Amino acid sequence: MKHNARLRLENERGAMPRPSRWNEIIEAAAEAFRTNGFAATSLEDIASAVGMWKGSLYHYINSKEDLLFAVVRGPAEEILNQLRELSDTDLPPTEKIRRATRSHVQILNSNFVYASVYLQEIAGRRKLPEWTAMDREYLNLLESIVREGVDSGEFSAVTNPRVATLALIGSLNWLTHWYRPGGSLHADEIADQFCDLFLGGLITRKTKAPRSQTITPIKTTKPRARRTA
Amino acid sequence: MKHNARLRLENERGAMPRPSRWNEIIEAAAEAFRTNGFAATSLEDIASAVGMWKGSLYHYINSKEDLLFAVVRGPAEEILNQLRELSDTDLPPTEKIRRATRSHVQILNSNFVYASVYLQEIAGRRKLPEWTAMDREYLNLLESIVREGVDSGEFSAVTNPRVATLALIGSLNWLTHWYRPGGSLHADEIADQFCDLFLGGLITRKTKAPRSQTITPIKTTKPRARRTA
Repeated sequence: MKHNARLRLENERGAMPRPSRWNEIIEAAAEAFRTNGFAATSLEDIASAVGMWKGSLYHYINSKEDLLFAVVRGPAEEILNQLRELSDTDLPPTEKIRRATRSHVQILNSNFVYASVYLQEIAGRRKLPEWTAMDREYLNLLESIVREGVDSGEFSAVTNPRVATLALIGSLNWLTHWYRPGGSLHADEIADQFCDLFLGGLITRKTKAPRSQTITPIKTTKPRARRTA
Repeated sequence: MKHNARLRLENERGAMPRPSRWNEIIEAAAEAFRTNGFAATSLEDIASAVGMWKGSLYHYINSKEDLLFAVVRGPAEEILNQLRELSDTDLPPTEKIRRATRSHVQILNSNFVYASVYLQEIAGRRKLPEWTAMDREYLNLLESIVREGVDSGEFSAVTNPRVATLALIGSLNWLTHWYRPGGSLHADEIADQFCDLFLGGLITRKTKAPRSQTITPIKTTKPRARRTA
């Protein structure tokens, strides 16, 4: 999280904010938003969670909205940026869908509280044009990959690429309702099952690709044994 | 919506509530909860939306929670009951998944505002044991169908039936973030695309079932032409 314009401003003015507490504040804000919802969380709640007076919070932010944006911007931009990079590659659509799914699950896993707040408080609520634009770009990029697969004949089960794309996004984002990092289900296992399910459904029988063993990870991750049913 | 214990109580006491306004009140409550969230909606907002004083609302309810439960109980119970009935049939797992998907989409479509409030305010938030039990029963019933398909060899792409089930539920519930009744996408079309996507993914190549034309609807609905890609 590098989104602390107010903090930078205070520093330029020679005020004495405590930058070391910024991470602590947004972690507390994220946890409070996720647990109680944005509307039901007060700045007093957040101040109290980090042992501050509410007034001291105003050294860091102007409003509760500032905290929400600070909380959600990181993972939202990361998910979008990874999909932008992936879209620019020449990988086959099947591989792009697999990597996009893994990347989405990995970012949710690594930023679980923050991403949950984004999905519960912002996505689909059209709060600000900036977020709507990010949501729309993500959807359009993923839909373009699905359309590539339809055009190339790889994906034959798709009658409506937008609906198919929204089905995938829905499965991924709904993770915030049931997944818990560190639980018995590993993020990679979930991503693999989602990929198998979606790709198995998207791919024609004839061109059905082999499963995960063909995949090289987008980032360095340790290889894992493939479970069989 | 038949959940107005307070109203019944008032009637028994000989008070003079206006039962004709009950539907109007819960419609206004549902709309307010969906638009602004439960926490950010006040009883004054709801009273004002139906042109009442807040005090008059207490002829109908004891608290804002009463309104939330009244709003969400109907579609929540309907979705669960339809899945219970379906689970008790001898239909093949493929057909059960197809019918469950259609039923879920149809109920979301017919009760959109109410179902959205349930999914955004209650599902996964563990508000009350009653709702948690309903969520868990729905998940377990659908997972049992997936397991039936795995055991019978119909569904071969499933390494983890629970994750596969949650992927389907996620796609369905995420509809509340993007679908709008009366928009350009028909509920049946969405249900069909979801089914094709999920079943195509679940079914082995060898036993891959023919698509929608084999399906008889669970309730009387007008037949519709099948789109082809």
